[in-house]
Amino acid sequence: MRSDNFTTPPTDSRTKAKALLLGLQEEICKGLEQIDGEGKFQEESWERPEGGGGRSRVMQEGRIFEQGGVNFSEVQGDELPPSILNQRPEAKGHNWFATGTSMVLHPRNPYIPTVHLNYRYFEAGPVWWFGGGADLTPFYPYLQDTRHFHKIHKEACDSINSTLHKVFKPWCDEYFFLKHRNESRGVGGIFFDYQDGTGSLYKGQNSDGAAAIEAEKIGKTNLSWETLYSLAKACGQAFLPAYIPIIEKRHTQTFSDRERNFQLYRRGRYVEFNLVWDRGTIFGLQTNGRTESILMSLPPLVRWEYGFKAPPGSREALLTDIFTKPQEWFTDKSLEEICRPLEAFD
Amino acid sequence: MRSDNFTTPPTDSRTKAKALLLGLQEEICKGLEQIDGEGKFQEESWERPEGGGGRSRVMQEGRIFEQGGVNFSEVQGDELPPSILNQRPEAKGHNWFATGTSMVLHPRNPYIPTVHLNYRYFEAGPVWWFGGGADLTPFYPYLQDTRHFHKIHKEACDSINSTLHKVFKPWCDEYFFLKHRNESRGVGGIFFDYQDGTGSLYKGQNSDGAAAIEAEKIGKTNLSWETLYSLAKACGQAFLPAYIPIIEKRHTQTFSDRERNFQLYRRGRYVEFNLVWDRGTIFGLQTNGRTESILMSLPPLVRWEYGFKAPPGSREALLTDIFTKPQEWFTDKSLEEICRPLEAFD
Repeated sequence: MRSDNFTTPPTDSRTKAKALLLGLQEEICKGLEQIDGEGKFQEESWERPEGGGGRSRVMQEGRIFEQGGVNFSEVQGDELPPSILNQRPEAKGHNWFATGTSMVLHPRNPYIPTVHLNYRYFEAGPVWWFGGGADLTPFYPYLQDTRHFHKIHKEACDSINSTLHKVFKPWCDEYFFLKHRNESRGVGGIFFDYQDGTGSLYKGQNSDGAAAIEAEKIGKTNLSWETLYSLAKACGQAFLPAYIPIIEKRHTQTFSDRERNFQLYRRGRYVEFNLVWDRGTIFGLQTNGRTESILMSLPPLVRWEYGFKAPPGSREALLTDIFTKPQEWFTDKSLEEICRPLEAFD
Repeated sequence: MRSDNFTTPPTDSRTKAKALLLGLQEEICKGLEQIDGEGKFQEESWERPEGGGGRSRVMQEGRIFEQGGVNFSEVQGDELPPSILNQRPEAKGHNWFATGTSMVLHPRNPYIPTVHLNYRYFEAGPVWWFGGGADLTPFYPYLQDTRHFHKIHKEACDSINSTLHKVFKPWCDEYFFLKHRNESRGVGGIFFDYQDGTGSLYKGQNSDGAAAIEAEKIGKTNLSWETLYSLAKACGQAFLPAYIPIIEKRHTQTFSDRERNFQLYRRGRYVEFNLVWDRGTIFGLQTNGRTESILMSLPPLVRWEYGFKAPPGSREALLTDIFTKPQEWFTDKSLEEICRPLEAFD
């Protein structure tokens, strides 16, 4: 399936992709400052010695956000690192161009989930592709919040092509998975990579997984550069409406040391995922990226506790037993029965 | 140099190595409980489904130690993971045996350094080897403490063979290095790996580095199994006399939020090293090790702060400018001139 011919992207592909992703950073930062009400993003522009640069924006000690980072970058290099060439052998021997916007938000209130977004566009010789997604990591999960986040992202995917979400939802579950803990990072969302408009929608590494099986059922899907551009745009623009209503609903809920301590403990998993498993982080560190911008995703305060186990039947155990496993959030009605008694439904 | 014939280890090699490393865990825990005065190690024994098991000991919320973990393990498996087979191709196709004791201590007082120790013994088919070392990671460094730690470890190496320390000191600087930060984890100590008694003392990956150059000068060094066993023993036993006097000297020094915050911030580097670069951690996670025991090394509380820079001329800048770069702690007299005005000499 990798031997399909790649269509030629529009002559202004890099300019268009860059404008889209810069605009996304702009729009998201504006929306986040508005909801925060107090915190402001501090901007730093930087250049990469090997080519390109970026614009990092960080909010620290806001009202809602203990820390938030939204990073735009546009970089070039001679040869892609092995971690990507394994997946894109056609790119070997070619110089590359990559532009992306990535974001991680660490809210102060443990009832507001941590959230991540990343959209990116690559070119390398004959190959080009879009990638990205957004996923939610609650500490004290609510089924309705989870459903809302998924619903908005599904609608964005559906606005482009009704088959996409079937693959991108399980791909997200598969990607944001901590093998050494045997748990998901959170409740997922959507994830896609290597979308070059040829062959299978799924271009991940797990040929037995749910995403691969769905993609197999759908069959070969040829999508134009413009369609995939629109996909990245629709999904990127879905972020604020997917996340802001959750903040609005949760930010006045009071919490004590217990919730705060559990939040700090669970943030440790976020660190473990990003440093051990995340391909984006590894790519950045391998390509001599700007360390401070790459590691902007790490939480401002984190706890590790040897041997911690959530008390059975608790809100904390709900997270570890149910909300950090891949689920069918809409169709599995048993989730409602589990969440209601713990006041985790609405 | 890898084609040398390996000598046959004694018939009771596994039993002897295991007893040494179990005894080391015992001895170290006893010494640490004594100096702490309040904290006690909690023990958990565990089995590994694929073979073997271990004995983890953790102290939490002690007087001196905010957290400390000393872990013994003895494990077997069918084939070593790629990260090790790259270095030991002779082990390919053979099942393996590994036993080790590892320790990380996170003291509460920022004037007491974090410290790590690990000694281990492997067998796989025709190959056997010893590895290990100990290294110190201060937050508010003192030249005399650094010299003391190095001196005791040098004496332990010298008691076996006077050439060893010349290689193992720079190897430690090379191994505990954060490439993405371009800084050392701390002030080093000693490190050695793949010591099988044949060829060069240095079996690391950096053929241009100081350790490789020293080993080249020394030439081929044949050491018996028994000699290398004695090396692990001498170095392991050097730990308490290398570290305890530093605690005794520093634990009454008072500190404020500034020192505490800097300590928590620098602990972030410890997490970054262990999760991104440490071969021991990667080996554990790749071989389906016991996650809680592997990640016992992570600090109990950690901070990340985007774009932090230590004020020029400060105690904090002394750490980042001088004490996280490889140094000749004894012979470089300029260090004394730098440390004295900052009251970082004695």
